[in-house]
Amino acid sequence: MENQSLTTIELRDGERIDDLQRNGYKIIQNKKKFCFGMDAVLLSGFASVRDGETVLDIGTGTGIIPILLEAKTGGRHFTGLEIQEESAEMAARSVKLNGLEDKIDIVTGDIKNAGELFGPASFDVITTNPPYMIGSHGLKGDNIEKTIARHEICCTLEDIAREGSRLLKNKGRFYMVHRPFRMVEIFGTLTKYRLEPKRIKLVYPFIDKEPNMILIEALKDGNSRVTVEKPLIVYKEQGIYTDEIYSIYGY
Amino acid sequence: MENQSLTTIELRDGERIDDLQRNGYKIIQNKKKFCFGMDAVLLSGFASVRDGETVLDIGTGTGIIPILLEAKTGGRHFTGLEIQEESAEMAARSVKLNGLEDKIDIVTGDIKNAGELFGPASFDVITTNPPYMIGSHGLKGDNIEKTIARHEICCTLEDIAREGSRLLKNKGRFYMVHRPFRMVEIFGTLTKYRLEPKRIKLVYPFIDKEPNMILIEALKDGNSRVTVEKPLIVYKEQGIYTDEIYSIYGY
Repeated sequence: MENQSLTTIELRDGERIDDLQRNGYKIIQNKKKFCFGMDAVLLSGFASVRDGETVLDIGTGTGIIPILLEAKTGGRHFTGLEIQEESAEMAARSVKLNGLEDKIDIVTGDIKNAGELFGPASFDVITTNPPYMIGSHGLKGDNIEKTIARHEICCTLEDIAREGSRLLKNKGRFYMVHRPFRMVEIFGTLTKYRLEPKRIKLVYPFIDKEPNMILIEALKDGNSRVTVEKPLIVYKEQGIYTDEIYSIYGY
Repeated sequence: MENQSLTTIELRDGERIDDLQRNGYKIIQNKKKFCFGMDAVLLSGFASVRDGETVLDIGTGTGIIPILLEAKTGGRHFTGLEIQEESAEMAARSVKLNGLEDKIDIVTGDIKNAGELFGPASFDVITTNPPYMIGSHGLKGDNIEKTIARHEICCTLEDIAREGSRLLKNKGRFYMVHRPFRMVEIFGTLTKYRLEPKRIKLVYPFIDKEPNMILIEALKDGNSRVTVEKPLIVYKEQGIYTDEIYSIYGY
């Protein structure tokens, strides 16, 4: 992906513009801070948003998920909530860069105050690519942006499930990508807040390796029956993606 | 596998003797009633029993799991609990056929009375290949033996988790094979009874199909962190098993 400069959008130090291979959309990222990963792209491919629905992305970071979902679906309106002011400001510039100000709002705020930010039962769909690591477990000397994106410092899994459930309409859908090692805890926390997992997909880097991501669709007030989908394998061989990955990326 | 007749063991109407490809062990089965499936074989391959440990198999049916585990592991003693008298009697004849009376006991009884049958904290390891279907859901006109083996008529998932936990020693291990569609409920029920899933493996019939079995290892009073293992794929192509399946079957 090559850098471009656009006269209408100001880039800050260390920022670059990447092409998303969807609708000609682009995104601003800053390598020194936090760039989106395959997790966000796979979640955008896994989430289903129907025509006319409203979507909230919790912890939107660069804004990658609402931007990709706007490109891929017929959703009516998308909101990206981000606690880090600098990230939110960058995401808002990406929205503007794509001329999507009418379709996507970036809101700076804390999910724990979601009740004040949005009313209860405000959204049809919630997506989230939350911090995976518990507390400061495995914490390295990264900068604060990366640390908050990866570790449960500003919010926990329980905060997201509790507030997510409150913000979803009845029978609304909750989509999350996470790490498989927390699967049991994730299911317990989601069901505690009436978010019933209905569809999951495990992402295996190679067919003979342990999965390193889990994609979950939960239904607010759904019954207890889950479909485990066929595995998503990332690499055919070292360095070569499978056709499914190319198709999700839109190549 | 060819039928054999042995002078010391009486076969009933419809029964046959199959070779297990392990230690020269054989098993008596009755096609009209219930024959063991791949589920039981995969659970025996997944379960780890250490030298000197004691094992209880809940709902042992033909006795396949204790017989295979006796062949594969250094476990000290194995008990197969079966509520159906006729199945238990047949399993006991298989034990005798293999000369394993000192290593394997088949007990006729109800898991719901496990406290009277065995003391609490009696076993290091519990295995179970329980009925998968809730109540009479999907019930066909099968005979009563098959119905009880497949449907939660004599015992539920909750009965097995509750009594299994009671019968396990502290840090004892619980192994179960089940259907993925009940995964969320299974995790919730196990953790309710302090059986924490620590290792799971999904069994996919083909690499591009949904999994049809889940293998679970839970640790009594373990902490919440689970390893999802590499996928177990059954068929390389139509009718041809993968090497992993051949190796579990002992060929």
